[in-house]
Amino acid sequence: MKLWSDRDALDRQVEEFTVGEDFRLDQALVPYDCLGSIAHARMLGRAGVLAEGEVADLVQQLELIMAEAARGEFEIRPEQEDCHTAIEARLTAELGKTGAKIHTGRSRNDQVLTALRLYCKAELAALADAATGFVAAVRGLVKSHGKTPLPGYTHTRKAMPSSVRMWGTAFVDSMKDNLKLIAAAVKLVDQCPLGTGAGYGVPLDLDRKGAAAELGFSRVQTNPVYAQLSRGKFEATVLHAATQVMYDLNRAAADLILFTLPELGYFSLPRRFTTGSSIMPQKRNPDVLELVRARYHVACAREGEVKALASNLISGYHRDLQLTKEPLMKGLQNARTSLSVMTLVFAGLEVDVPRCRDAMSGELFATAEVYRMVEQGVPFRDAYLAVSKKFD
Amino acid sequence: MKLWSDRDALDRQVEEFTVGEDFRLDQALVPYDCLGSIAHARMLGRAGVLAEGEVADLVQQLELIMAEAARGEFEIRPEQEDCHTAIEARLTAELGKTGAKIHTGRSRNDQVLTALRLYCKAELAALADAATGFVAAVRGLVKSHGKTPLPGYTHTRKAMPSSVRMWGTAFVDSMKDNLKLIAAAVKLVDQCPLGTGAGYGVPLDLDRKGAAAELGFSRVQTNPVYAQLSRGKFEATVLHAATQVMYDLNRAAADLILFTLPELGYFSLPRRFTTGSSIMPQKRNPDVLELVRARYHVACAREGEVKALASNLISGYHRDLQLTKEPLMKGLQNARTSLSVMTLVFAGLEVDVPRCRDAMSGELFATAEVYRMVEQGVPFRDAYLAVSKKFD
Amino acid sequence: MKLWSDRDALDRQVEEFTVGEDFRLDQALVPYDCLGSIAHARMLGRAGVLAEGEVADLVQQLELIMAEAARGEFEIRPEQEDCHTAIEARLTAELGKTGAKIHTGRSRNDQVLTALRLYCKAELAALADAATGFVAAVRGLVKSHGKTPLPGYTHTRKAMPSSVRMWGTAFVDSMKDNLKLIAAAVKLVDQCPLGTGAGYGVPLDLDRKGAAAELGFSRVQTNPVYAQLSRGKFEATVLHAATQVMYDLNRAAADLILFTLPELGYFSLPRRFTTGSSIMPQKRNPDVLELVRARYHVACAREGEVKALASNLISGYHRDLQLTKEPLMKGLQNARTSLSVMTLVFAGLEVDVPRCRDAMSGELFATAEVYRMVEQGVPFRDAYLAVSKKFD
Amino acid sequence: MKLWSDRDALDRQVEEFTVGEDFRLDQALVPYDCLGSIAHARMLGRAGVLAEGEVADLVQQLELIMAEAARGEFEIRPEQEDCHTAIEARLTAELGKTGAKIHTGRSRNDQVLTALRLYCKAELAALADAATGFVAAVRGLVKSHGKTPLPGYTHTRKAMPSSVRMWGTAFVDSMKDNLKLIAAAVKLVDQCPLGTGAGYGVPLDLDRKGAAAELGFSRVQTNPVYAQLSRGKFEATVLHAATQVMYDLNRAAADLILFTLPELGYFSLPRRFTTGSSIMPQKRNPDVLELVRARYHVACAREGEVKALASNLISGYHRDLQLTKEPLMKGLQNARTSLSVMTLVFAGLEVDVPRCRDAMSGELFATAEVYRMVEQGVPFRDAYLAVSKKFD
Repeated sequence: MKLWSDRDALDRQVEEFTVGEDFRLDQALVPYDCLGSIAHARMLGRAGVLAEGEVADLVQQLELIMAEAARGEFEIRPEQEDCHTAIEARLTAELGKTGAKIHTGRSRNDQVLTALRLYCKAELAALADAATGFVAAVRGLVKSHGKTPLPGYTHTRKAMPSSVRMWGTAFVDSMKDNLKLIAAAVKLVDQCPLGTGAGYGVPLDLDRKGAAAELGFSRVQTNPVYAQLSRGKFEATVLHAATQVMYDLNRAAADLILFTLPELGYFSLPRRFTTGSSIMPQKRNPDVLELVRARYHVACAREGEVKALASNLISGYHRDLQLTKEPLMKGLQNARTSLSVMTLVFAGLEVDVPRCRDAMSGELFATAEVYRMVEQGVPFRDAYLAVSKKFD
Repeated sequence: MKLWSDRDALDRQVEEFTVGEDFRLDQALVPYDCLGSIAHARMLGRAGVLAEGEVADLVQQLELIMAEAARGEFEIRPEQEDCHTAIEARLTAELGKTGAKIHTGRSRNDQVLTALRLYCKAELAALADAATGFVAAVRGLVKSHGKTPLPGYTHTRKAMPSSVRMWGTAFVDSMKDNLKLIAAAVKLVDQCPLGTGAGYGVPLDLDRKGAAAELGFSRVQTNPVYAQLSRGKFEATVLHAATQVMYDLNRAAADLILFTLPELGYFSLPRRFTTGSSIMPQKRNPDVLELVRARYHVACAREGEVKALASNLISGYHRDLQLTKEPLMKGLQNARTSLSVMTLVFAGLEVDVPRCRDAMSGELFATAEVYRMVEQGVPFRDAYLAVSKKFD
Repeated sequence: MKLWSDRDALDRQVEEFTVGEDFRLDQALVPYDCLGSIAHARMLGRAGVLAEGEVADLVQQLELIMAEAARGEFEIRPEQEDCHTAIEARLTAELGKTGAKIHTGRSRNDQVLTALRLYCKAELAALADAATGFVAAVRGLVKSHGKTPLPGYTHTRKAMPSSVRMWGTAFVDSMKDNLKLIAAAVKLVDQCPLGTGAGYGVPLDLDRKGAAAELGFSRVQTNPVYAQLSRGKFEATVLHAATQVMYDLNRAAADLILFTLPELGYFSLPRRFTTGSSIMPQKRNPDVLELVRARYHVACAREGEVKALASNLISGYHRDLQLTKEPLMKGLQNARTSLSVMTLVFAGLEVDVPRCRDAMSGELFATAEVYRMVEQGVPFRDAYLAVSKKFD
Repeated sequence: MKLWSDRDALDRQVEEFTVGEDFRLDQALVPYDCLGSIAHARMLGRAGVLAEGEVADLVQQLELIMAEAARGEFEIRPEQEDCHTAIEARLTAELGKTGAKIHTGRSRNDQVLTALRLYCKAELAALADAATGFVAAVRGLVKSHGKTPLPGYTHTRKAMPSSVRMWGTAFVDSMKDNLKLIAAAVKLVDQCPLGTGAGYGVPLDLDRKGAAAELGFSRVQTNPVYAQLSRGKFEATVLHAATQVMYDLNRAAADLILFTLPELGYFSLPRRFTTGSSIMPQKRNPDVLELVRARYHVACAREGEVKALASNLISGYHRDLQLTKEPLMKGLQNARTSLSVMTLVFAGLEVDVPRCRDAMSGELFATAEVYRMVEQGVPFRDAYLAVSKKFD
């Protein structure tokens, strides 16, 4: 049984192919689809399509489903294809004709968009929280070790003096940029598509503004063609924010892999964060940092995938767009998990103060020497050339 | 002669390889580097490094360079590597010792970042203007032909009734989303890196706030390591906005290629917008639409390129980052040109009203029939099944 | 318990993060790791490290594991991290000291590479089979309907006469190109890394040639640093072949979506291959074709992901490379499943001969008219211009 | 004047947009288009379309154009759009009616494909030569310094003993894999599309086999729809080979950036290969290595761009495909230049033997210690645990 048919047999192989992973991925959408359906039921009540009692029954059942899902007990069977069918099937099984009315005034298209947008809003809030947690951990390190000097590198070569404070604060400031990108993504996501049907509206007068408000959306996505056109776009913007978060973690991980290299030894990872080798007994490896580094590429790949999927298609829904769901979900999860692990890493990072101090070798101060000459009136370019001769 | 040396011969092949296309690309940066240098000279004046007369001389020369560049007459020679060297070389040639002082208190790193951020701000403003122009052209079409019906498609199959208004307004609304993304990109870009040196500050007390204000930046990018860390990030976010603009144009172009297919014939392109074939005398081809469609992929490739270039690197500048300049510039130009061409297309588009009306065949109204039954009290799912039987 | 340690507690969150999906993905590698371990045990026997009886015990246990895995009953627990640990753990549990000897002369690094290369060889053979199946289905269509005319399109506009034969045979010929790419990928994959240890060899004299032959590899991958350097490379080349398969299917799917458009109606899909809409009772949608089309982008994303993951890293193994496993496996599965579904589609495709014939309208023959004039001695360019005037 | 029309004015902005960079890029195609046109003229001669004298005139003119192009003097004007129009225009200007016959029996579509395939064959041969040159340079280093020990790293941590020989030979072996990929790409490219017209053949009996042989192609690309379908595919496979070349250079560059880090100092770059800083007088930076590293991402981006451009399109030519030309050309040039620069780097690389020896610290030999215990009969896993305790 699917939302769209009770009468036809779909070829078994085609069915498996079209369902794909949806029945598994959709577990994460169950609560959001229930919330959307509750708002929809109430909107239908206000429109006179459902009686007051019918609305109450539907709301009650949907809340039961949410509770089940929270306990990990709500099942979506492969032949049900997705959470939307599974939920409507349950409502019809429990409430008969009332269940058969829930889909009035909507299409699976706007239903999916509503659930996905609610999901994104929740996930972006969680991502912002995780980013804030990471900032706190970096600030903790800066607080305890800010004054410890560090060589500043350019071109992977010692350049000028830096410090734990200067280095750590860069990631704090950059993560604040990411929070702005997350906020911009929320702004795009925060509009309610419920009521746009399959992309051409529904022949029914619905209180869309009321439903949007109930679901916590700031505004209604009025034009139904635009609602479908935005599929692929909002996911891409959400993932762009996630990718930018991962960019910072990628650079931080690369720094830490080098700065914990025993030959340099500015920092070290606690033993419980490192892994060993199956053949070399001496090894302690920074796998955790390498995987964070690698997951930046996972982030880029997911974002690129979403951006490619919707290309070269005419307006209106296409099944191609369904495949944006997996990269969206995995991309968000990827960033959140990585933030959380790097928060742990920064909280546990050990600073080797003597080795940091020993590393502050002469060439790091060559520029300062130039500037002492500048202060004495030598034009910069001449002072620069004079000092550079010492390093031939 | 390069900014960094007067004394060493660089291997010729290495030199060509490292210079690459910079001396050509940098033509676009000359005015922004001059503006940055003017602000820098004044900041050095305020710091007492330059005398009032020196500042005036530098400003005058820099303004002359800007005027030359505007006439397309300022030359950057390959062996000068980039606009920064060419400009300093000119200042030194004209002003001697005063020219040799201009680089005091800065590095090429913060100089490049300043010029790039100014460039991005200007280009994003131009992109927003072009987007607004496109919106006006679409609105023009909606005004003249809004009521003309169009079949609404899902899965490239007739679905429900649409109209020129519903279709066109979708692109208007979606372009407004893009304007928000452009605004978010401006917000990230709008901070002044001048004074962060090579990424570890400069040993000189400079009025960074004053320079930022003079250049029209809203705020100072305080942490110097963050200034370098933001390279690759702000370009990526700028290009993400450009990619989203292109996404809409890609979908609009795909629509128009199908809707102008003679077999459907809802719209047609004026003959002066179409091209012919070298072998088939009857052909009028929508190359202009195909190239707009294709340029979405160019946009994605440029954005992905920038995102990949800066990965897996430790903090601090690397020459790898120089290669973000070309995709940044080409990505922005790509979006702007495409917007401008599609504005022309929408302004010239011809609507074939009779063929649009003829296309409004029965199956487009099947859903409306379901809803007439719903109004008479039939549960939605039952009405749906009843009507569906007519289409077996 | 992991291969690399029995003594240390790894932070729980770090452990979960580093294990990731490996314990699930590795189910597919169990048979190949067992085969590799059997060859390894025999090689250790020949080297005198294991007694004959020990080799026999190990081989017997490994064959039991393979049988279990074939029944879906061999479990890899998350804390075991991967199939390699799970298998060694079982051997040690069953055989005590003998099990503790199996890892002599190898590292998990060459063990993983061996299993992955065996896996790739098997999967590429299966992919080639599926491609051959697809070719047969297309040829079936050409056999039954080859003479049916079809309009040939360029720029999505009618161009010149084509036919089901001309159209179908293009996909046959192109798939043969893919078979060459698959063969090239096999050639790269077909070398045995067993014995390269962690990338720097093992301090033990091993009969690597014998092990390679036993595993069906054509040659030994001699240099151990190269064995690790090839990680990321062979996967990329395998996925490139898969992507090219998907490219053809993408274009074929795009053709079929247009050619089954009711407005054209050259072909149609059997009802059991189409899906419906949750709101529009008349709809029959080609979701199966849309998903095949979309999966080309999934293929590109997986290939791009692998290519990005290994970038900017120094020689030698990094944990980053572990993340190539998932895109490799999913990319191969993606292509195989899509081939199989498109084989079904071509086998079931219905040709509407009358509508194909009706579509052969005049403009398709304009070029032929030019050539009739050429035969009568008119220079091509003049004939072209003469005919083109008729189509103004 | 364009190949397809003499009668219509194309909107100026549309014209500029559609021409794009073609008139510049096409300079590289002039010799190949002339070769293709010579073979075509002779084929038309054999078919009786051209008289013997006409063929001779055309061949003479085309050879003059090739000579001009070799001197950099053959001009393609923007309004001519591409080299194909510029060449035909010249032939017609010089030869009148004879020139107007050259396009008989072909379309610009098969003409472009022929030129591009000839170009690819020549470029792939040059790429293979450059790869062979690189191999020779690495072998030179191995010859002079093969026995110098190097620490072998895994996870960017000292692992086991390596050597200049082991390290260098890895790149030799890997480049041989790339040569196989180049050969596979040549195999796909090496078929002659001349005579497939616009993708649906030409209504003229032509000796395609003879033309193919004259152009040095191994076989004829028979099916005309397949000829167009292969656009995008052969470029992608050519670029995949280029990307794999760049992969090795990326890893080699990453190695050299670390191994020339003064803190390690195993290798150093000659001063003439390094660049300086505009602010820090002590700096010698490995820009050349950083740019080689970065150009791997340029390679991936170009390959990905080509793969995306042709997606979701129906069979037959689309103008979108024209945009594959730039990434194809730039991708090939990118790999060739980088190979040539890295050949220079390996030839000039300086090895610091004492620092290499000093770096061979104790932990590199921990595995050897395990194996000494294994030789004395201790099971591997027990020996491993015993030795690992020493490194706590």
